[in-house]
Amino acid sequence: MVTIKDVAKATGVAPSTVSRVIANNPRISIMTKEKVRKAMKELGYHPNVSARNLAVKSTKAIGVVLPSSADKALQNPFFPEILRGIGSVTHDMEYSMTLSSGITEEEIFAEVQRMVYGSYVDGIILLYSRLNDRVMNFLHDKNFPYVIVGKPYEDIDEVTHIDNDNFTAGKEITNHLIETGHERIAFIGGSKELFVTMDREAGYQTAVKEAGLKNCEEYKIHTEFLKSGGREAVETLLSLKVRPTGLVISDDLMSLGVLSGLEEAGISVPHDISLVSFNNVYLSEIIRPSLTTVDIHIHELGAESAKALIEKTIDKSEPAKRITVPHEIVFRNSVSKRGAL
Amino acid sequence: MVTIKDVAKATGVAPSTVSRVIANNPRISIMTKEKVRKAMKELGYHPNVSARNLAVKSTKAIGVVLPSSADKALQNPFFPEILRGIGSVTHDMEYSMTLSSGITEEEIFAEVQRMVYGSYVDGIILLYSRLNDRVMNFLHDKNFPYVIVGKPYEDIDEVTHIDNDNFTAGKEITNHLIETGHERIAFIGGSKELFVTMDREAGYQTAVKEAGLKNCEEYKIHTEFLKSGGREAVETLLSLKVRPTGLVISDDLMSLGVLSGLEEAGISVPHDISLVSFNNVYLSEIIRPSLTTVDIHIHELGAESAKALIEKTIDKSEPAKRITVPHEIVFRNSVSKRGAL
Repeated sequence: MVTIKDVAKATGVAPSTVSRVIANNPRISIMTKEKVRKAMKELGYHPNVSARNLAVKSTKAIGVVLPSSADKALQNPFFPEILRGIGSVTHDMEYSMTLSSGITEEEIFAEVQRMVYGSYVDGIILLYSRLNDRVMNFLHDKNFPYVIVGKPYEDIDEVTHIDNDNFTAGKEITNHLIETGHERIAFIGGSKELFVTMDREAGYQTAVKEAGLKNCEEYKIHTEFLKSGGREAVETLLSLKVRPTGLVISDDLMSLGVLSGLEEAGISVPHDISLVSFNNVYLSEIIRPSLTTVDIHIHELGAESAKALIEKTIDKSEPAKRITVPHEIVFRNSVSKRGAL
Repeated sequence: MVTIKDVAKATGVAPSTVSRVIANNPRISIMTKEKVRKAMKELGYHPNVSARNLAVKSTKAIGVVLPSSADKALQNPFFPEILRGIGSVTHDMEYSMTLSSGITEEEIFAEVQRMVYGSYVDGIILLYSRLNDRVMNFLHDKNFPYVIVGKPYEDIDEVTHIDNDNFTAGKEITNHLIETGHERIAFIGGSKELFVTMDREAGYQTAVKEAGLKNCEEYKIHTEFLKSGGREAVETLLSLKVRPTGLVISDDLMSLGVLSGLEEAGISVPHDISLVSFNNVYLSEIIRPSLTTVDIHIHELGAESAKALIEKTIDKSEPAKRITVPHEIVFRNSVSKRGAL
């Protein structure tokens, strides 16, 4: 690799002079600068970016923090898809994208500290939002540029966040089951600490209440955003005395687990039980029956979050904003008129 | 954030002295060093990693280069899965992982140049291997640490690469079709420039020849490693005068496209036509019919490549090696005895 020393040799100046030319030091004459720059070009010398970053204070990199367990997260097609959205913007802006690989909350926190204190990245996108999150509080305290996909707990006007209107989406998809004649509808969601679950569940609950339907605690099941989570939920579901005829499931991958659990139990979807879901990841079109689900425009969530973050890193005074990405229901084959179990 | 100036103020020394303590400059007395280090600890000062990297010459980051079009690549579940494998190792070793986001070959090449000249990363994993690849040649010329998932064209003993035995896998899965009675077997694969396609196809061809079966050029179809690629292949397939009864498809996502294309054309798998595939991504279990496919242990390919790269970055004299990850056929429901079309 061509070094500063090689450039110095070729131009007959000291290596320190070459460094000063790179830093555009006014003490160096224009003639020397031109000579050195010509040699750099001819030799194919590229100034070291680590050194350059110290001057311009930009790493041209953004950090992307996956929810606890990157390993598990990447099993859910939501994450590759949102990374595609982020990547489409980092690509245009010539930024690189650094992924967290922490598994426990402790490890993720340590990683984010390294990113911030180490000036690895200009800013951070958090791909989750939950109650009293250490990472979020830390970034906030340090006044480090970050955006959230989801929404912050407090200071909602102080943190830029990119979200769907999950409450309305939850209400609309539940109303679709109600309109097709279902009266006993259960909700299956992820951890109660995640805002996405809370919002979708609140929408479900409002729809059920407004329609005057049965609204009991045992119809609300919480599990993991994974296929295994869906299978666990089926066990709970089958143990209920009065089973629901409709299910609102807050994640497509979870729906996949529910489907295979029900299949094993000899229960047919949509004949015996109807099912609606969220996200519209590509597997919702592939599985049989294909899923009626809320398309939350994952790619756009990613792209908008990257755009907002890069704006923020370029100008820290950029005001916080809430960006709502629209949703729409995609009707497929997992719902039938009032299936009775 | 605590700065060098804050540390200098607290200890009553010049900021330049604090910098010299961080660089462990021998001109600074042990007493001063201890005083400054104590203050750094108390104030919670973390030296800037960009600065530190200049000294220790490690970024504790590795670059991961996706094949041209990261955007398209991430649609194939192969890539999130291999990232999980890489992430499991970077996590243990406390490395971060930087993804390429280039779309054209030109852009990817520019990105890799930035990574190398800019000392963004300690080493690079290439998640593809193809003939006369500029990126590969560049890394080789620069003697920059890199490993390949797949295999290099030339200098096979000089570059560490992590691969399956795709030739044998191709032969075995084709033999499975032959053993179930198929005599007209076609191959559908990605670009002929990709080694993975070439190797799997060579295995297919050898099996077909050894069994004394029809081996014609029109039974070899090349398309994209995507669902859309599979659908395109179906058109070619349906235009053949004598249609095959068995298909060897070199990628599960492509198989998904073939399945939906055949379904639209009213051709049933496995009744009318049998199909075997490669990779065993999770969708091969989900789709109907589920796919008989070669499990290539994607997670392990990722983990082994990260381990080999990090070894190489720590010790450049580490000899190049070929790591072969084992494969096995997973039998499911996409094959039936001698389906005739």
